[in-house]
Amino acid sequence: MRSTRVSDLARFFKPRSVAVLGASVIEGTVGKAITVNLVSEFKGLIYPVNPKYDEVLGLKAYKSCKDLPEIPDLIVVAVPAKIVPQVLEECGSRGTKAAIVISAGFKETGEEGEKLERMLVDVARKLGIRVVGPNCLGVYDAHSRLNTIFNPPDRQKMPPPGNVAFLSQSGALGAAILDWLAEYNIGMSKFVSYGNAADVKEWELIEYLVEDPETKVIMMYIEGVEDGRSLLKAVRKATVVGKPVIVLKAGKSEKGVRAVSSHTGSLAGSYKVYEAGLTQNGALVVNELDEFILATKALSWLPAPHGDRVAIVTNGGGAGVLTTDAVELLGLHLAELSEETKTYLRSKLPPAASVNNPVDILGDAPPERYEVAIEAVMRDENVDLVIVIGIMQSPAFKPSEVLESMKRLLKKYKKPTVFVAPGGEYTVSNLKKIESEARIPTFKSPEEAAKAYYFLTTWYKSYRVLKSLGVA
Amino acid sequence: MRSTRVSDLARFFKPRSVAVLGASVIEGTVGKAITVNLVSEFKGLIYPVNPKYDEVLGLKAYKSCKDLPEIPDLIVVAVPAKIVPQVLEECGSRGTKAAIVISAGFKETGEEGEKLERMLVDVARKLGIRVVGPNCLGVYDAHSRLNTIFNPPDRQKMPPPGNVAFLSQSGALGAAILDWLAEYNIGMSKFVSYGNAADVKEWELIEYLVEDPETKVIMMYIEGVEDGRSLLKAVRKATVVGKPVIVLKAGKSEKGVRAVSSHTGSLAGSYKVYEAGLTQNGALVVNELDEFILATKALSWLPAPHGDRVAIVTNGGGAGVLTTDAVELLGLHLAELSEETKTYLRSKLPPAASVNNPVDILGDAPPERYEVAIEAVMRDENVDLVIVIGIMQSPAFKPSEVLESMKRLLKKYKKPTVFVAPGGEYTVSNLKKIESEARIPTFKSPEEAAKAYYFLTTWYKSYRVLKSLGVA
Repeated sequence: MRSTRVSDLARFFKPRSVAVLGASVIEGTVGKAITVNLVSEFKGLIYPVNPKYDEVLGLKAYKSCKDLPEIPDLIVVAVPAKIVPQVLEECGSRGTKAAIVISAGFKETGEEGEKLERMLVDVARKLGIRVVGPNCLGVYDAHSRLNTIFNPPDRQKMPPPGNVAFLSQSGALGAAILDWLAEYNIGMSKFVSYGNAADVKEWELIEYLVEDPETKVIMMYIEGVEDGRSLLKAVRKATVVGKPVIVLKAGKSEKGVRAVSSHTGSLAGSYKVYEAGLTQNGALVVNELDEFILATKALSWLPAPHGDRVAIVTNGGGAGVLTTDAVELLGLHLAELSEETKTYLRSKLPPAASVNNPVDILGDAPPERYEVAIEAVMRDENVDLVIVIGIMQSPAFKPSEVLESMKRLLKKYKKPTVFVAPGGEYTVSNLKKIESEARIPTFKSPEEAAKAYYFLTTWYKSYRVLKSLGVA
Repeated sequence: MRSTRVSDLARFFKPRSVAVLGASVIEGTVGKAITVNLVSEFKGLIYPVNPKYDEVLGLKAYKSCKDLPEIPDLIVVAVPAKIVPQVLEECGSRGTKAAIVISAGFKETGEEGEKLERMLVDVARKLGIRVVGPNCLGVYDAHSRLNTIFNPPDRQKMPPPGNVAFLSQSGALGAAILDWLAEYNIGMSKFVSYGNAADVKEWELIEYLVEDPETKVIMMYIEGVEDGRSLLKAVRKATVVGKPVIVLKAGKSEKGVRAVSSHTGSLAGSYKVYEAGLTQNGALVVNELDEFILATKALSWLPAPHGDRVAIVTNGGGAGVLTTDAVELLGLHLAELSEETKTYLRSKLPPAASVNNPVDILGDAPPERYEVAIEAVMRDENVDLVIVIGIMQSPAFKPSEVLESMKRLLKKYKKPTVFVAPGGEYTVSNLKKIESEARIPTFKSPEEAAKAYYFLTTWYKSYRVLKSLGVA
């Protein structure tokens, strides 16, 4: 495999100008949806290219790449598969160096498509064009607002700008996860649906993200990988610079492996081998879609923990017990509060409260009792991680006041803190408020909070070891 | 332990008349909240009792039980702990046979409280009063609309009438779970927060529910149990009559056991022993709060499965693979579709579609393609369970049409069917619609759907074995 100048990939995210090949005015076409997205959000120059039109969405349209007034930094290709190599040749001959090929109908469809894909790669190599795709949704850069995802905006929300990058081998699933991340307000840097990865490989994208100042956390959904060694090297590099790579790998079971091959035509390989290799190089391998989101929230929003001793503050005894169970069963530790903390809590809390961990401040706990208990456990040197539980069905619980307390105390103590509240509508709307106002991860169940801490501490442990060893 | 006439417990759910001891007009008191709830929903007679008032919420108030115009079927006691035994004595002397004691301040608070609780029990036994509580939220009967839960209705939603009963040792957590069930529109028969279980035990409530025509599924949150043998016997009875008992048991870890004892003062005992005993007698023991809800949805809404062979219909390849993995890793089986089905699908679906399981009908699948594929797998005798996946970010997916197809086909084939769609706002609102209109369980992740089927098939397997053995 030829060496890559990682900086070449910048054109995919921050182009000054983009040509859309197959730009269209016809409702329901990919070519129209992409042009609409670009026109409404992207700040750079946009050139619609389609021999059928003089104008697309109020912009002058061009017959072909040859007619463009300048060489665009990036071309987005949404023409039928059969003419993709020819279109690429035309643009490449004029000097274009980056192309996102959205079009499907390549390797994933059988022999004929495979031949087309080889032609595409040949043209790209010959003319020095880097290609993302084909058979993909392309790129979303939340900062430059470049967006080639053609799903309708009322169904497909895009996450706000932030520090999470997401690389997805699957387009549809990638889009669904983006939409899910948007719902949780998880800020993103870049999303790439790389499809068949005919030219640009996932490991090259990781190497680019390692250098990318906008990215702190890297999510990856993968089914199969061609060059495992390069992937692991790239993951190791990300880990060593302190950027967690969170991997959801499909094809874990024998039948899953078979399903992968009929989906993308790629080989899923042995999951155990993948898992071991990825984990050894610092990746956090999650098992479920929910965990993918949850681990991302934890690693993107929370500060580095010093250890794995958890303190729990709760206004419900039952929820406190369930949280204790979940923490212990995942191998984390329930913090042993210092005598000082217990004495302090005893002096401040009602006699029926429990000053041991979990600190049970009782069902009638007003905001002041939360403030006292949260500060006490944050201050305690035996505590690394804090879980605050608020049973909100109780009229005594005041969401806004407890949120203000947490914000104030987090500024002072900077310890990882998450919030748990099981319930329906009222509870859920308050959890959203806590997340959007304070970036405190919230969960509807104790077990999710414990898992978030499990992922956080697991990654940091591995990071600390690998950092001391270097990239090697 | 003395024998119980299970029918005695009917007074707690379907009383003709209820007296509220401690009824109040003061905002923020439990006595007011309970009276407000009863006045607004309960169909029977309500007697506020409080020596301080002549009238409460427009109803004539009485000084004491002695002054009531009749013997109420049920009394709800929300007076200070210290006078509870005396109040009970007064009402019992007049002939009252059922009391819910909401008041806290008994065994859970230490020695003094323990003494009070013994007095309460003595009075109850002497006068033949059955007591639920103390230190509890009491009862919600979704059919009679009796509701003693004093949380404000804007924070605490109540599930609609249905067939799920829920017994909770914890009041606060019980209320939170109720609110969560309400959000999912999971219909309930009865909820009992039994608190300290000084008189009426959880196993007696199960025995009552075994006979209760309104109840099909029984949820239980337990921390500790006094009489394990009676509990297991009751669980066995429920299983044998075809009513699943779903148990979430707190105190799974060593520290969790300690937390239980400081919460309710009860002994959690060895979790392994509980788990084994409950499982042997047919209970479905879940590990997490999420699973508690998910298993309930599955067992309450889905018909009995014939086996564990799962067919998947999807418009997204990646989601299909993840679902395959989840199904196989939980020990369920991916169905091998019959040649007939495959031939039929090949004739009806586009060439790029996959006619093997998972049946991938492609990202551009219109409603007709869903109809064809769902019917084909439902009709196939090799299929016991169906998972339909709809990636809704794609503009081709039409939620209403696919819902109509599923409704029509379910009427015809009656096979357990669940629906999966990962995503944000648009997706979530459509999932809610599918649940409320068709009672098809929906999930945001493949793994949740697979778990739902794992619980469904696990319970039915155990039910079939135990039914053939009898109560023994």
